Amino acid sequence: MSAALSLNRLSLSAEQLAFQGIVQAALLEDLGQGDVTTDPLPQLVLLQKQALFRVRQNCVVSGLSVAALVCQMVDPALVFTPMLQDGDFTEAGTVIAQVEGAMASILKAERTALNFLQHLSGVATETRRYVQAVSGTETKITHTRKTTPGLRLLEQQAVIHGGGVPHRFNLGSCVMLKDNHLQALGDTNPNQAIAVAVKTLRAKISHTTKIEVEADTLAQVQQAIEAGADIILLDNMSPETIREALSFIQNRAIAEASGGISLETIRAYAETGVDIISTSKITLGVPAIDVGLDLD
Amino acid sequence: MSAALSLNRLSLSAEQLAFQGIVQAALLEDLGQGDVTTDPLPQLVLLQKQALFRVRQNCVVSGLSVAALVCQMVDPALVFTPMLQDGDFTEAGTVIAQVEGAMASILKAERTALNFLQHLSGVATETRRYVQAVSGTETKITHTRKTTPGLRLLEQQAVIHGGGVPHRFNLGSCVMLKDNHLQALGDTNPNQAIAVAVKTLRAKISHTTKIEVEADTLAQVQQAIEAGADIILLDNMSPETIREALSFIQNRAIAEASGGISLETIRAYAETGVDIISTSKITLGVPAIDVGLDLD
Amino acid sequence: MSAALSLNRLSLSAEQLAFQGIVQAALLEDLGQGDVTTDPLPQLVLLQKQALFRVRQNCVVSGLSVAALVCQMVDPALVFTPMLQDGDFTEAGTVIAQVEGAMASILKAERTALNFLQHLSGVATETRRYVQAVSGTETKITHTRKTTPGLRLLEQQAVIHGGGVPHRFNLGSCVMLKDNHLQALGDTNPNQAIAVAVKTLRAKISHTTKIEVEADTLAQVQQAIEAGADIILLDNMSPETIREALSFIQNRAIAEASGGISLETIRAYAETGVDIISTSKITLGVPAIDVGLDLD
Amino acid sequence: MSAALSLNRLSLSAEQLAFQGIVQAALLEDLGQGDVTTDPLPQLVLLQKQALFRVRQNCVVSGLSVAALVCQMVDPALVFTPMLQDGDFTEAGTVIAQVEGAMASILKAERTALNFLQHLSGVATETRRYVQAVSGTETKITHTRKTTPGLRLLEQQAVIHGGGVPHRFNLGSCVMLKDNHLQALGDTNPNQAIAVAVKTLRAKISHTTKIEVEADTLAQVQQAIEAGADIILLDNMSPETIREALSFIQNRAIAEASGGISLETIRAYAETGVDIISTSKITLGVPAIDVGLDLD
Amino acid sequence: MSAALSLNRLSLSAEQLAFQGIVQAALLEDLGQGDVTTDPLPQLVLLQKQALFRVRQNCVVSGLSVAALVCQMVDPALVFTPMLQDGDFTEAGTVIAQVEGAMASILKAERTALNFLQHLSGVATETRRYVQAVSGTETKITHTRKTTPGLRLLEQQAVIHGGGVPHRFNLGSCVMLKDNHLQALGDTNPNQAIAVAVKTLRAKISHTTKIEVEADTLAQVQQAIEAGADIILLDNMSPETIREALSFIQNRAIAEASGGISLETIRAYAETGVDIISTSKITLGVPAIDVGLDLD
Amino acid sequence: MSAALSLNRLSLSAEQLAFQGIVQAALLEDLGQGDVTTDPLPQLVLLQKQALFRVRQNCVVSGLSVAALVCQMVDPALVFTPMLQDGDFTEAGTVIAQVEGAMASILKAERTALNFLQHLSGVATETRRYVQAVSGTETKITHTRKTTPGLRLLEQQAVIHGGGVPHRFNLGSCVMLKDNHLQALGDTNPNQAIAVAVKTLRAKISHTTKIEVEADTLAQVQQAIEAGADIILLDNMSPETIREALSFIQNRAIAEASGGISLETIRAYAETGVDIISTSKITLGVPAIDVGLDLD
Repeated sequence: MSAALSLNRLSLSAEQLAFQGIVQAALLEDLGQGDVTTDPLPQLVLLQKQALFRVRQNCVVSGLSVAALVCQMVDPALVFTPMLQDGDFTEAGTVIAQVEGAMASILKAERTALNFLQHLSGVATETRRYVQAVSGTETKITHTRKTTPGLRLLEQQAVIHGGGVPHRFNLGSCVMLKDNHLQALGDTNPNQAIAVAVKTLRAKISHTTKIEVEADTLAQVQQAIEAGADIILLDNMSPETIREALSFIQNRAIAEASGGISLETIRAYAETGVDIISTSKITLGVPAIDVGLDLD
Repeated sequence: MSAALSLNRLSLSAEQLAFQGIVQAALLEDLGQGDVTTDPLPQLVLLQKQALFRVRQNCVVSGLSVAALVCQMVDPALVFTPMLQDGDFTEAGTVIAQVEGAMASILKAERTALNFLQHLSGVATETRRYVQAVSGTETKITHTRKTTPGLRLLEQQAVIHGGGVPHRFNLGSCVMLKDNHLQALGDTNPNQAIAVAVKTLRAKISHTTKIEVEADTLAQVQQAIEAGADIILLDNMSPETIREALSFIQNRAIAEASGGISLETIRAYAETGVDIISTSKITLGVPAIDVGLDLD
Repeated sequence: MSAALSLNRLSLSAEQLAFQGIVQAALLEDLGQGDVTTDPLPQLVLLQKQALFRVRQNCVVSGLSVAALVCQMVDPALVFTPMLQDGDFTEAGTVIAQVEGAMASILKAERTALNFLQHLSGVATETRRYVQAVSGTETKITHTRKTTPGLRLLEQQAVIHGGGVPHRFNLGSCVMLKDNHLQALGDTNPNQAIAVAVKTLRAKISHTTKIEVEADTLAQVQQAIEAGADIILLDNMSPETIREALSFIQNRAIAEASGGISLETIRAYAETGVDIISTSKITLGVPAIDVGLDLD
Repeated sequence: MSAALSLNRLSLSAEQLAFQGIVQAALLEDLGQGDVTTDPLPQLVLLQKQALFRVRQNCVVSGLSVAALVCQMVDPALVFTPMLQDGDFTEAGTVIAQVEGAMASILKAERTALNFLQHLSGVATETRRYVQAVSGTETKITHTRKTTPGLRLLEQQAVIHGGGVPHRFNLGSCVMLKDNHLQALGDTNPNQAIAVAVKTLRAKISHTTKIEVEADTLAQVQQAIEAGADIILLDNMSPETIREALSFIQNRAIAEASGGISLETIRAYAETGVDIISTSKITLGVPAIDVGLDLD
Repeated sequence: MSAALSLNRLSLSAEQLAFQGIVQAALLEDLGQGDVTTDPLPQLVLLQKQALFRVRQNCVVSGLSVAALVCQMVDPALVFTPMLQDGDFTEAGTVIAQVEGAMASILKAERTALNFLQHLSGVATETRRYVQAVSGTETKITHTRKTTPGLRLLEQQAVIHGGGVPHRFNLGSCVMLKDNHLQALGDTNPNQAIAVAVKTLRAKISHTTKIEVEADTLAQVQQAIEAGADIILLDNMSPETIREALSFIQNRAIAEASGGISLETIRAYAETGVDIISTSKITLGVPAIDVGLDLD
Repeated sequence: MSAALSLNRLSLSAEQLAFQGIVQAALLEDLGQGDVTTDPLPQLVLLQKQALFRVRQNCVVSGLSVAALVCQMVDPALVFTPMLQDGDFTEAGTVIAQVEGAMASILKAERTALNFLQHLSGVATETRRYVQAVSGTETKITHTRKTTPGLRLLEQQAVIHGGGVPHRFNLGSCVMLKDNHLQALGDTNPNQAIAVAVKTLRAKISHTTKIEVEADTLAQVQQAIEAGADIILLDNMSPETIREALSFIQNRAIAEASGGISLETIRAYAETGVDIISTSKITLGVPAIDVGLDLD
């Protein structure tokens, strides 16, 4: 405990600044008022150990910089060394990082670090499945706002690690006119709802902000294009309908397909030539990757 | 915006006090610096609407009190009325709650409320599957510490809503001597490691705290019982080995089975008569329940 | 102090959720450990008063919803009633809001509420000057990231209240390639720096995110257009050079002028037909509006 | 839990704004992740009860507004009604407040509310003993900065409730030149240390800030007076020495006695005519007042 | 102030993570908006000094790791070196730690560090008195939930430093059925209240959580044992009654005595053979230990 | 990102502890969920650069310690080296600090650091103008409470850097009886309002707290002096009236002039011999200083 001896430090990068809040919350959640198993056994503080984070499934790794922050917050004297980088694909059995320091500190950091790694690597790995399913096409894969509360930033990064691209981060990042907005706005003349809404918004929003319009029908696609939407969300359409929509859109807007698209059907969607497919299936209810911590 | 007119309020129960931090984090995450779709359309503030939270799958509902808090934080004038209670099983198509108020506020609260409901109802529903798989036995189902960072309290409650029981909340709730602890302590005489550790801990911990010991072998079960452990974690054992362990334990400790138990095999484990089965499968990578918000 | 009698409330809208942090910081800053003038004079708590927020200069009002939150945080029993709306232009002497309640509470809220109103109305009013200077043209006025630390959201809203439009909120809202980025990237072939950077970024960023490129020369304008930039920042150019740039751009990108543009010269810039002019002069060092609180 | 039914509210006065941080910390400390006794017994939520806060010793009451905030934070539907006011002296057996509402909420608020009341009433009551010991003299009683971490504001208010007056709140409230400062400054000419320090400080500090100088000897008293100190701290002097000091000071500064003054000796100090006596004995290690909560 | 020169650090252990909130609150409380005595005297920043924390009474030391954190938060360049460990008994005059660095920083950290050390060493030392009073018996000493708001974790550790053992940390750590719960539950059949409550709770709580039942009479002791309580709180009983209770309990539950037990009577209670005695007298209104900081 | 390699640190002085909240708020405001320009260009992380903070106008520098903290928070590996000190006057073109490290980190810290430097140097420089305008007189210049919300501490320090002196920090620092207080108190006998209020306050406030009374007329000056005010605020008086007031006050109180004093008229006020002049013009709507960051 001697501050004179433990010249350690809390190292934060700008990236870590953005997620230190959730990491601290997760640690306080797990550490509570102290570890009743480890704290009464002072020999665990004196014992210096090395432990290995090892994946037990093939996966895309995500969460190493989070795990590094977990270890530093628990004990700045812990030395966390990643063996590969977030976004790397690796095979079952690979050591992805090692941590060295007081056994007591390793035991306190273990579960929280693993919980982040398991979930985020799960998101990255699931994303990769979808990305591979469309390989050879020009179509990109992205997420939705159906994310785990508190973890959106990390899940978005995991999607990137898996080969996907980011969608709008939140309600402030991009206009998205959905059926609920249009229904609320368009009472008197539904056909004009999109045109009126886009015009009103364009006059008020930043010139750096795009407008995306959700279209459930080809008629709405046409209305959105004519209104000057930057992006058309082709919602719950079949590949055939999407082809029709695309032949109308003709690069006048970015075309995004979404709704009811599974790993089985996604290639058919990509082969329509749609620019991007968004799916909640890469963030919601995604299988976790089994990661363990082995004492050396 | 007139404060003279909007005599609303932020209603917090003691239960909500514990999770208001994660709710606020989730809202700030999604609202960002404002909703660029809704904010420039002031008619959405004036428009009073009613919307219905409807489940699209059979499920156990969990997260209603969280969704209520989300709505209140977004706009204290929103009136959120649950139609059933957390823990109720219901069928696809059921309206589980309604919210009434300014359309703009409903749109801002929608995604965050749904994200909580989808995930937590998923945990509750998955728990129910495991609970039903052991129905008729005395065995209880519980979670592990493999939970989503930041959501442990809510996931633990969802497990309860699904018919499970809580495990230790965190490292401060119960002693759990695992292989890593014993390995670190038992260098000179592994056979004595459990006895020494339990004795040391019993002298120092609260008389309100139990000691659980992880046993990988029957020999360790015997050592744990002799050391006076309150709970024995029978780790990664077959039902047959567990039966042997139980015949030795003979109610001198609570017997908990864990490790490699699936929905398919869990009944065989429960029929051994083990007191409780803990599994990460009810919190980790659990399928989300589809919940939507329909404008009335 | 009787909780049984003071059935008051803390009313927060989604809008106020975003700025309650800075309001609370400002209040704690001014209230310290109590008001040593008011607290020892209990008759000021008993005395019910009405006070009027009155502007002493012609101005565009901004900050009413902030002042409302200040009053509610100081004392939920204070009734704050705005007389007009944020964004309204009004003349010297106008009462813009009234507050009614315990004299002690009014005195505690006064300075903080006024400090917000004075500064934000200053920003809105200065913005209006620039907006009026370009009236009759199609050019819009927007802010930069040169804002007061902690107040960007409120200053951006004040710009809108003054007739301006928002620019990107922060580093996450829009790509902005500036000379420093290009210099760092373009060592081997400066002519290619823009093309390479835009291509790299376009492959990785969200399809909802625009790319703005800063151009100091017409050559760079051409490179930016060819690279497919969404917005070109015409930096520190004369109106003549901007005309040349615009004739080249031909609506293939949004043209933004910035740098060295004053209230005197802005009309000449607007008359070039540039889409938008950004200036730090509407947020930085802006004259405050004199607002006072008069006891009725 | 129906938000539609529980139209409750969180009532915060400006006074409570200053101590809501410590109240929330205390509640989270005691509630943890839920009350494992009360939460599984839903009949306690339905049961409406009234409970009485009753003091079991003669005392000066302090902490009623804190207890009110505790109750409101636990459950805004709890109705807390004080029967007397902070600062009132009352006898053993008196009901000082009542609380009415859900039994479960009362049980959750009970301990935290009592912990504040017991300690703060202890401080107020101890202060009253010192104040009474000097009754009839002009001398006032005040505290020092030896307070309980996190509770200084509440303890200062309790001192006032007991009849004392506040001292400087913290290092920012008033200059206090102590031996350590002078020793550090006065190496070359100790006799000049006070004069030099006061002159330097007076030129730099606010004209609203006073300068207090600690004097251990009559020589230092003289130096402090000549230097123009506003307050002289007569440290660890006998009543006789203080009389000498006072005859020299002659109202040119406020005289404060401190150090080694007990309840037994304080009257002798007050009878010297010293303006104020500060003592840590009214905040540090003060006996708590026994307060209980009785179900009606 | 040169960041290039001051390569200092903020060192936090997992232990310190749990109490950094209260330490920061205490520092902000004392430092306010700056130290008006020290800040205007820049020579105090340049002056390097060593100062010694010295106890002026025999005591058990507690709070050294807190004082270390205080010093690091004030100035990471301060080097704090403990001379002994929390939990050590030492005599008046002992230097328990030294701190070295800028005189200005030492002066700013002084009072806050001392306030923690004085109170926590007081708790540890008072605990030791009670522990010594029962020496030679098997009875352990523990605290209650009557602790100082915000300081429970540190006070619990101080109790351990004094030779005591921890009780449940908060309402989430252990079930405690008290008279108020039973009264609320047992209207129809008081004799059955304990049995019903224990059975209900056992079915719902974690298998890692114990159930403690408060018994005021021997009849209740019997009911609690028959209901299967893990711990019986023998409340406000005489040693004789406790003996009777123990002869009935016969190790079927842990027996805890509490209520009305003083330093004078505690040995008589311990000699009954009761397992543990809990008392608020070791945390509430405990005399502080005199600790000072001497410049070397 | 290797924690094993980046042995960096977060260096906080006591001074920085007080403003780290606003710095973190400003950084989170500008960094959002990541820098969409810099993050996708990993070569900017690898590129080590040196950049120079250069002022483009003659100015008094203020904000260097804030800029240092900004850089450290963004990336503890950034080395920030000030070239001069807060409070130094320097000429256009001077490099006031340099920062060295990863180009990506420099780009992320740039705008926030500059925003603080521009505004605070503006305050310091404007203060210097007022200070120089009264040079040769004994009159000091100070600020008011009309400051930018969230920035009062930094603006107060900037005033000191410009040669001014601090006024009361907030409502807790000094009593200030203004017309609103007196009006509220003095209904029955206005002539007695000041006397009664001062007497009441003096009995209750700390002996370390001064009392300032606002006087609009010479009659009020007389009342304030007779009441024993420590400071008289001569509000909105002409220099002639102030001379009359001073001849009456005769050093019995500190005389502060305020209200309607401009850079043009301030010397005439100072030549009256008034002790101090307070003005909002040095904090409110002050021109920013142009500061840039140049890549080396």
